[in-house]
Amino acid sequence: MASKSFYALIAGVGPGTGRAAAVRFAQKYPVVLLARRPESYEEAVADIKKAGGQAIGITADVADPTNLKNALASIDKELPGSRLAAAVYNVNSGFAKKPFLELKVEDIDASLNGSVRAFFHFAQATLPLLQKSVPDSEYPPTLIITGATASIKGSAQFGSFAAGKWALRALGQSLAREFHPQGIHVAHAIIDGVIDIPRTKDWQVNDGAEDGKIKPEAIAETYWYLHTQHRSAFTQEVDIRPYVEKF
Amino acid sequence: MASKSFYALIAGVGPGTGRAAAVRFAQKYPVVLLARRPESYEEAVADIKKAGGQAIGITADVADPTNLKNALASIDKELPGSRLAAAVYNVNSGFAKKPFLELKVEDIDASLNGSVRAFFHFAQATLPLLQKSVPDSEYPPTLIITGATASIKGSAQFGSFAAGKWALRALGQSLAREFHPQGIHVAHAIIDGVIDIPRTKDWQVNDGAEDGKIKPEAIAETYWYLHTQHRSAFTQEVDIRPYVEKF
Amino acid sequence: MASKSFYALIAGVGPGTGRAAAVRFAQKYPVVLLARRPESYEEAVADIKKAGGQAIGITADVADPTNLKNALASIDKELPGSRLAAAVYNVNSGFAKKPFLELKVEDIDASLNGSVRAFFHFAQATLPLLQKSVPDSEYPPTLIITGATASIKGSAQFGSFAAGKWALRALGQSLAREFHPQGIHVAHAIIDGVIDIPRTKDWQVNDGAEDGKIKPEAIAETYWYLHTQHRSAFTQEVDIRPYVEKF
Amino acid sequence: MASKSFYALIAGVGPGTGRAAAVRFAQKYPVVLLARRPESYEEAVADIKKAGGQAIGITADVADPTNLKNALASIDKELPGSRLAAAVYNVNSGFAKKPFLELKVEDIDASLNGSVRAFFHFAQATLPLLQKSVPDSEYPPTLIITGATASIKGSAQFGSFAAGKWALRALGQSLAREFHPQGIHVAHAIIDGVIDIPRTKDWQVNDGAEDGKIKPEAIAETYWYLHTQHRSAFTQEVDIRPYVEKF
Repeated sequence: MASKSFYALIAGVGPGTGRAAAVRFAQKYPVVLLARRPESYEEAVADIKKAGGQAIGITADVADPTNLKNALASIDKELPGSRLAAAVYNVNSGFAKKPFLELKVEDIDASLNGSVRAFFHFAQATLPLLQKSVPDSEYPPTLIITGATASIKGSAQFGSFAAGKWALRALGQSLAREFHPQGIHVAHAIIDGVIDIPRTKDWQVNDGAEDGKIKPEAIAETYWYLHTQHRSAFTQEVDIRPYVEKF
Repeated sequence: MASKSFYALIAGVGPGTGRAAAVRFAQKYPVVLLARRPESYEEAVADIKKAGGQAIGITADVADPTNLKNALASIDKELPGSRLAAAVYNVNSGFAKKPFLELKVEDIDASLNGSVRAFFHFAQATLPLLQKSVPDSEYPPTLIITGATASIKGSAQFGSFAAGKWALRALGQSLAREFHPQGIHVAHAIIDGVIDIPRTKDWQVNDGAEDGKIKPEAIAETYWYLHTQHRSAFTQEVDIRPYVEKF
Repeated sequence: MASKSFYALIAGVGPGTGRAAAVRFAQKYPVVLLARRPESYEEAVADIKKAGGQAIGITADVADPTNLKNALASIDKELPGSRLAAAVYNVNSGFAKKPFLELKVEDIDASLNGSVRAFFHFAQATLPLLQKSVPDSEYPPTLIITGATASIKGSAQFGSFAAGKWALRALGQSLAREFHPQGIHVAHAIIDGVIDIPRTKDWQVNDGAEDGKIKPEAIAETYWYLHTQHRSAFTQEVDIRPYVEKF
Repeated sequence: MASKSFYALIAGVGPGTGRAAAVRFAQKYPVVLLARRPESYEEAVADIKKAGGQAIGITADVADPTNLKNALASIDKELPGSRLAAAVYNVNSGFAKKPFLELKVEDIDASLNGSVRAFFHFAQATLPLLQKSVPDSEYPPTLIITGATASIKGSAQFGSFAAGKWALRALGQSLAREFHPQGIHVAHAIIDGVIDIPRTKDWQVNDGAEDGKIKPEAIAETYWYLHTQHRSAFTQEVDIRPYVEKF
């Protein structure tokens, strides 16, 4: 595969799922990590390199199409001739739990921008790249989308967050129906639980049970598995939750 | 009820569901019809008046909060002291069936604006009015949302439309969970079929079967029924489709 | 309509939904009430007659096809020439909340018998009768099925109950797809809450809120409304829950 | 792990998913294959042995609890001291596509027996074995259930099949909620497409597209992956369909 090399692209890298996905996909591919601030990806890039992998961090706001375009152009310079094997959309839209009447339109917009518009730009930029990889890639070129509990449930006071997440899930489902027949795998993951990252260290979740928060590495394993699925047996959606999680 | 009068508000009046809902609710309440252009509501207003009802047409773009605020202020002048018994959100966001890579961000925005942001403003403006009606209204104050097939299915090439409709459904579900306990009924209707209006007259639907398109009056009956449900037995979601529709 | 009279059939009459449905449909039709024991329908029959309606109680086990056949034959004698306008399947399969490993196969069978096999016999017996009513009935002939929270959720320790209820919902959905195009309306109602009947009088539900249990009369109103829907706008499924119910 | 060995159990072995699952799990564990007729498992057993694995075929009708008990007892003799790491329920209930009014109660019973009662016995027999494995097994002990398109959709004329499959899915969901917290992983797979086996060789599926039928080996890979998931990140349900499948 020397002359036909491939890379993976992770958008939305922080200390959790994005970082773990980058580390996992780096076992096979050079990985490109996008984040709005360098401190979000620097450690991951260093770790991957230390482990013998290839990683490139790019500071970019995926929600900004020009920014995104520039980022993708710079990949081409760093990894000339390399094609996209897998793209992971893991951008966090933040969320405001608030009584509906206290929400500002800015809350809705933040959710829609991060979950819908940014994904729209990301998908429009990456799907043509994935299309080019179909004939030669070892595994079907893959677009993976990180969802949440709020992707399938509109809880009280979570309306703005749920609006963005449901819309994102709808887009993913629509893309699966359009791009699966082209050989591109589009999968959506419902992350139904609290992720075990530094920020959630002191959160009492599931009565403090061991492994009661989701290990980002475990999410990353599932993402990697989805990427390797045979095209005769694509999974469009998975749920992921701790064994002790109520659902 | 003389001194404690109530009215109904229909946003998004055209020749179909909005108009029929106005006519149906006018059998009980004065109705206010909102549309972006007067020609959208004029006939309905005239018909309601001719039938002995009370109807007020207001030209307003629900997606514009100032516009909406002015519209609601003008209701107060026309119907002084009257309170809101039911609000119907029937705003059409339009939809672009297009291969995903041909979509413009404007297509996404049009869907999000009509289905999410406009509804957000409408709900923020009307829910406080509905709250004030709880103690005295004959039926639980009601907010009804018009959905579509695309509210529950992300079909190929319908991504932008589905994104808005799923988000709207999520918001409705979240509002139901927050406002039902306050005695306000929030219901979402999945209109799963082609509506029988002048614009669809020549569409060949369901092999041209009689009643193969949904009568707007039948939708309006269901909306009215939802409004009258006892608070011990609220329906949060209904599907509505022609007997011959595949689903 | 003198010479073309119609009746309604309610299977599974007790003090709650079945009885209320009988009372509601009796405002329009003679009603036939099926229950395994006379004491389940006697009071309802008397009440309906006192109110000027026509009601016939028949002791029958719907799960027993011979029993059911005899019951239907006896209707023909009591109401000669009358045709079936609406059938309500409200048979209670009972439920055992138990750790799965403590369940007996009898628990599963009880659930499957009441929710699936009995309904199978009921639907096979009534659908041909409803077919005969299509050309002349005022409203589309209707088959309404009572479901529960467990129709859409397999909660821990509710496996046997949920198995029967999910299967019943599946059958209802399949019948809707097959019989809607014939003009027969098949609807499924998810009753998501505790019903306000003598047996639940002392249950503390929804913090004891007023109207925190579902009024059977309110369910019956929804059933009646479903029956009257125009064939261009059938609802296949409704949820029904108290305003204060968590969902 | 010498003294604490584990095995996998596959119920419902034919030429498709069951056989492929046995082959896949045999890469790690001795596997036990259950089928009603020896010819269903003989070739698989031979192939696994040829490849250096350990396989035991047992003729048993899972729907018969005595039969099943005897089968499990004989495992204990063949693999003394070995514990159950994973159980796959892949029993085929057969299905009758028929107009509802042509169904016999035997059709319903066949579906309920294969999908619900047989699974009930299988789960009651295997869950206690899986419980014993929790403290020492490398991966969380796993119960995997094979579902179908009919697990989530009640299509016209597929009522009896769907009834059994929905009930099975309900049971799986209920078991997940009860046994996940005990460290046992219960997963349900929606196999949404035609499986590529000798019997379907001549079926024209998805316009005859290459890989338009699901490779059993690909399903088996997903089952294996599910088994290996970390307990902080269990997947309860996956869908599996060919890239060209409409859904």
